[in-house]
Amino acid sequence: MIFSSDNWAGATDAVMAALARHTSGFAPAYGVDPLSRSIEAKFNEVFEREVAVFLVSTGTAANSLALANYAKPGGVVFCHKEAHIVVDECGAPEFTTGGNKLFGLPGDAGKFTPQALETALKGYPEGVVHHGQPSAVSITQATEVGTLYTPDEIAAISTVAKSRDLPLHMDGARFANALVSLDISPAEMTWKQGVDVLSFGATKNGCWCAEAVVFFNPQDGAGFEFLRKRSAQLFSKSRFISAQFEGYFENDSWLESARHANAMALRLAEGLSAAPGVDLPVTPQANEVFPVIPRAKAAVLQDAGAKFYEWPTDDLPADRMMIRLVTSFATTPAMVDDFVSRF
Amino acid sequence: MIFSSDNWAGATDAVMAALARHTSGFAPAYGVDPLSRSIEAKFNEVFEREVAVFLVSTGTAANSLALANYAKPGGVVFCHKEAHIVVDECGAPEFTTGGNKLFGLPGDAGKFTPQALETALKGYPEGVVHHGQPSAVSITQATEVGTLYTPDEIAAISTVAKSRDLPLHMDGARFANALVSLDISPAEMTWKQGVDVLSFGATKNGCWCAEAVVFFNPQDGAGFEFLRKRSAQLFSKSRFISAQFEGYFENDSWLESARHANAMALRLAEGLSAAPGVDLPVTPQANEVFPVIPRAKAAVLQDAGAKFYEWPTDDLPADRMMIRLVTSFATTPAMVDDFVSRF
Amino acid sequence: MIFSSDNWAGATDAVMAALARHTSGFAPAYGVDPLSRSIEAKFNEVFEREVAVFLVSTGTAANSLALANYAKPGGVVFCHKEAHIVVDECGAPEFTTGGNKLFGLPGDAGKFTPQALETALKGYPEGVVHHGQPSAVSITQATEVGTLYTPDEIAAISTVAKSRDLPLHMDGARFANALVSLDISPAEMTWKQGVDVLSFGATKNGCWCAEAVVFFNPQDGAGFEFLRKRSAQLFSKSRFISAQFEGYFENDSWLESARHANAMALRLAEGLSAAPGVDLPVTPQANEVFPVIPRAKAAVLQDAGAKFYEWPTDDLPADRMMIRLVTSFATTPAMVDDFVSRF
Amino acid sequence: MIFSSDNWAGATDAVMAALARHTSGFAPAYGVDPLSRSIEAKFNEVFEREVAVFLVSTGTAANSLALANYAKPGGVVFCHKEAHIVVDECGAPEFTTGGNKLFGLPGDAGKFTPQALETALKGYPEGVVHHGQPSAVSITQATEVGTLYTPDEIAAISTVAKSRDLPLHMDGARFANALVSLDISPAEMTWKQGVDVLSFGATKNGCWCAEAVVFFNPQDGAGFEFLRKRSAQLFSKSRFISAQFEGYFENDSWLESARHANAMALRLAEGLSAAPGVDLPVTPQANEVFPVIPRAKAAVLQDAGAKFYEWPTDDLPADRMMIRLVTSFATTPAMVDDFVSRF
Repeated sequence: MIFSSDNWAGATDAVMAALARHTSGFAPAYGVDPLSRSIEAKFNEVFEREVAVFLVSTGTAANSLALANYAKPGGVVFCHKEAHIVVDECGAPEFTTGGNKLFGLPGDAGKFTPQALETALKGYPEGVVHHGQPSAVSITQATEVGTLYTPDEIAAISTVAKSRDLPLHMDGARFANALVSLDISPAEMTWKQGVDVLSFGATKNGCWCAEAVVFFNPQDGAGFEFLRKRSAQLFSKSRFISAQFEGYFENDSWLESARHANAMALRLAEGLSAAPGVDLPVTPQANEVFPVIPRAKAAVLQDAGAKFYEWPTDDLPADRMMIRLVTSFATTPAMVDDFVSRF
Repeated sequence: MIFSSDNWAGATDAVMAALARHTSGFAPAYGVDPLSRSIEAKFNEVFEREVAVFLVSTGTAANSLALANYAKPGGVVFCHKEAHIVVDECGAPEFTTGGNKLFGLPGDAGKFTPQALETALKGYPEGVVHHGQPSAVSITQATEVGTLYTPDEIAAISTVAKSRDLPLHMDGARFANALVSLDISPAEMTWKQGVDVLSFGATKNGCWCAEAVVFFNPQDGAGFEFLRKRSAQLFSKSRFISAQFEGYFENDSWLESARHANAMALRLAEGLSAAPGVDLPVTPQANEVFPVIPRAKAAVLQDAGAKFYEWPTDDLPADRMMIRLVTSFATTPAMVDDFVSRF
Repeated sequence: MIFSSDNWAGATDAVMAALARHTSGFAPAYGVDPLSRSIEAKFNEVFEREVAVFLVSTGTAANSLALANYAKPGGVVFCHKEAHIVVDECGAPEFTTGGNKLFGLPGDAGKFTPQALETALKGYPEGVVHHGQPSAVSITQATEVGTLYTPDEIAAISTVAKSRDLPLHMDGARFANALVSLDISPAEMTWKQGVDVLSFGATKNGCWCAEAVVFFNPQDGAGFEFLRKRSAQLFSKSRFISAQFEGYFENDSWLESARHANAMALRLAEGLSAAPGVDLPVTPQANEVFPVIPRAKAAVLQDAGAKFYEWPTDDLPADRMMIRLVTSFATTPAMVDDFVSRF
Repeated sequence: MIFSSDNWAGATDAVMAALARHTSGFAPAYGVDPLSRSIEAKFNEVFEREVAVFLVSTGTAANSLALANYAKPGGVVFCHKEAHIVVDECGAPEFTTGGNKLFGLPGDAGKFTPQALETALKGYPEGVVHHGQPSAVSITQATEVGTLYTPDEIAAISTVAKSRDLPLHMDGARFANALVSLDISPAEMTWKQGVDVLSFGATKNGCWCAEAVVFFNPQDGAGFEFLRKRSAQLFSKSRFISAQFEGYFENDSWLESARHANAMALRLAEGLSAAPGVDLPVTPQANEVFPVIPRAKAAVLQDAGAKFYEWPTDDLPADRMMIRLVTSFATTPAMVDDFVSRF
């Protein structure tokens, strides 16, 4: 009953098999091996256009470097106030951008609106040096609370960003979960709605450590290789990341993993919504479920070996708590059913 | 005939087997899994004392973060002028330390002397704010040109460093190669000679991407976990690095790999020293050989598929060049003999 | 009718006279001249204890460097959400601290409560590397909206800060205005309530460019001279800042300037409170007045040559606006009466 | 007998008179006052073209910010190994550029040659991410040892810089001294030879604290105002710097000050060259003289109240030392003659 996070799982068989396949033999170091080149081509195919893609090893690296690519002196990045880049990356974006500020926008269910962005941008009129200058807008898909921006919502945010010549960044740590849930193409969820740069996450969905920074306007990434190297994210044996992507994309195993994880979340949600004493204030759209349960029940579950985290939230009675349940490719129906049966 | 670098090899079987072993199942994320704890204990055993150890994924990360741990405003790090941190890390140490300067010391065969360090430090008297302030001393073992500091030489450098209260850092990207060549213990090559912090490299010697920052005075690393996270080097599925170390240390496979690489370098050196038209100005002590060969011969070798890099050097006739040949666990005697036979 | 800001004034006669007095002759450069030493001694006297004091030239420099002195990797500074360091310094604190985050606390009338701080700190439990780590607490005295923390309020905030071993910083850009309004001693407004470091502002109150970073625990500033030099704030002809302070402190001219400015603000407030169509939602306590006036009236005043800025605020009818009026040593009663008479 | 540095002098009467003139009255803050605008226009006139000029307060600020304007990830600035930016700014350029490296070129008499630059640049081939990327070239005029680049030498260095699309920066801390010595126009010493950005120093030549960053291609400075503010170098009462420049340029007082200082250096050199036991290895071209004198004589001079610094140099007998003598607008013939007479 492991629901702590999707990163408590290991790697999928497809990913490990690919890695094993490339273990022996020699290959040029530092990202110019044939396998890495083929993975770059694969990204073009996945996104139905020529992209500039740079492999890195953690989501924090992908996000920080993507934002650093557009950093300005006194720069300000606009994102949701609960975004991972604000709350969970120990200031890596601020450090990597040379001190750009993250402006946390309010918004229900982990999402901010184009209106909220527009209002915040008004506080940063052109050329007022005291306030600094907007440098980027960032959305998270799926969000920290497992919700999704629709393509139209993304496009509307992009329109506001573009009105100030700002790039739109998408933190796609759970990109695949969002994609299969919306049932649209990678292109439709990104550049067709005006996303400029994507942190394409693969780790949570079955890789060991494989993330990619994808620039939809390849020239945007012209100097990125220096940024990546300077942040110690250019790997000598780079094929070990490329191999993970090979396995990830092979036979659409990434979509299959995400579909499974989402299905497990749905199974959880359905089970819990019928359980006594449980509320589900946020409808799960990807692989996370946020039930409100009796605090006493949480202790019982943990004693039984269930793993999950409390999700701090306001305005609950002292005897109730919101918890976060995350599913992954490795979650089994039995695990879900066992958990639900204990309510 | 691949001699370009030891990082053109993949991973050893021991490393891949360990990784495969830990592929499935769940484990706590972010470095608190049981396997990571056991690897930390293993480091204590290897170094015969309690150390504080932090796993990271690239040598550049290990070096940059180790130096950042001791960074000061206006700080100056003293190292050899050809050190990897100066020449090959795209300014990552400068960036990660908030702009500390690397002072490149002269010295033959990739090594600097205690006297050279002492002279340089005189340029930075205590409390002269203009010049900045010394923050660390860094040596590379084995050096960039495959030579070694003896234990006594390390101790003498440490003595000078300590006279100014400076930590001594060792860049051990090729730690194992140096160790088996000197035939001493890890403790004897490090803290027993006054090394304070080590970049323990495992990637070049058979891992995919496994490096460790080792503090011999554990309290030195008290705030390091924040530095590591801020530089995006805390891995969610941290066991994938730990597993590499498990395989690396298992049955002393790391020492075996290094002994093999060194033996191949020796075989190369012996073969080349008997070859016509070849000089060996630097005696190889680890897994690198730097012969001076006819430029025309280099072209012939490359046409035959040999891979190696020219090593820029002064004062050679136009028709001769120095090349760098690096061996690894994956280098075969046949590969060496084939190469030598072409002279 | 210049009420735009107290920094639209020039320098007081006392300050210019002192500067003129030290124009000729030679003096050691870089802060070790006798005049600078005597100013440092004067600060001890003003604060009734031995302090470590470092002269700089702008308030942004003082604030940024004070916070940088306590910066940590992934550090978080807690302050009011409308604090100058958050809103008006173009990311200088973030840059100078190597990317520390400013956490903006809510609170009425430009002040935050100990409770608000305590709640925010709970989001940063010890040792949770993802969120980063608290590095400092900062209050502004007088605040951005001309209000004051009482000594008890400062002490209460300090108690919360100390419960997490955090230094308490005071941005004293308008220190003198606050001081004379509270009618207490500098010691009582600072270290006696647990303030650890102060940005002592003198520019707004009659200097050209003279600010000081004051450490009440002198050892806290042990490495500060390197921070200051690295930020280009060590002046070669340092006596020109010291001379300003000489004039500033002479015959308590600084207190006199502040009393005058505050009196002018009071005169404005009294006049406006009797004026038709004017509201004064915030009671002025220092040298700033924030009336809400008819938007049409603002235009009329500006046409007549009055200078002031709109102060953006929510929830006002479209035909009304809040404006900020700032007084200084150079504000005359005639100027105030002229302004008031136009309502 | 004060020859320690030109920054031991105070301000010229012209500068103080102008400052006094602008003491009272109100003016818009933060650089948009009419006086500041007129000073900007004056710079256009001085340089015979439209320039973008930004006033700052220290030479270290001017240099650091000028280089930061062109910084790149992994950037490398090429300059003389004894340049002020390398030796005397406590890492401010490295910090302000986000960790760019300063590459110290060798060269006699404080100057490097185009050939030395060309050779160094070869170590940084295009697109080799490991080494980083060249970001700027910097020369000092007059140099640290009081010598000058001829216009042709500047042009030749610029040609090499431009071959790699690098901006040429001139550290003009002693710009006026160089200018009057070469007897050419400001334009001829800068942009007509391919200088792109200048740190125009006025402090050493008679201001309190007045420096300017001058971009000869105004568009180069498009984002500079944010850089300046972020480094706390935008002054609220900006007119106090502008006023210094007003006095500085008035009646060509700046040229007169520099001519006087240079004449005093010449008088020193002439006197010393005739003195027993004195060598003058470097011919003074501006306001600095570097005699080699008996060590015993130095002590005698210091006992008599003479102020100067030893200039560390190699290869002198133990009983002899090189000293640096700096003259300024405030140096008197009597002071010079007194000094010389003691040999």
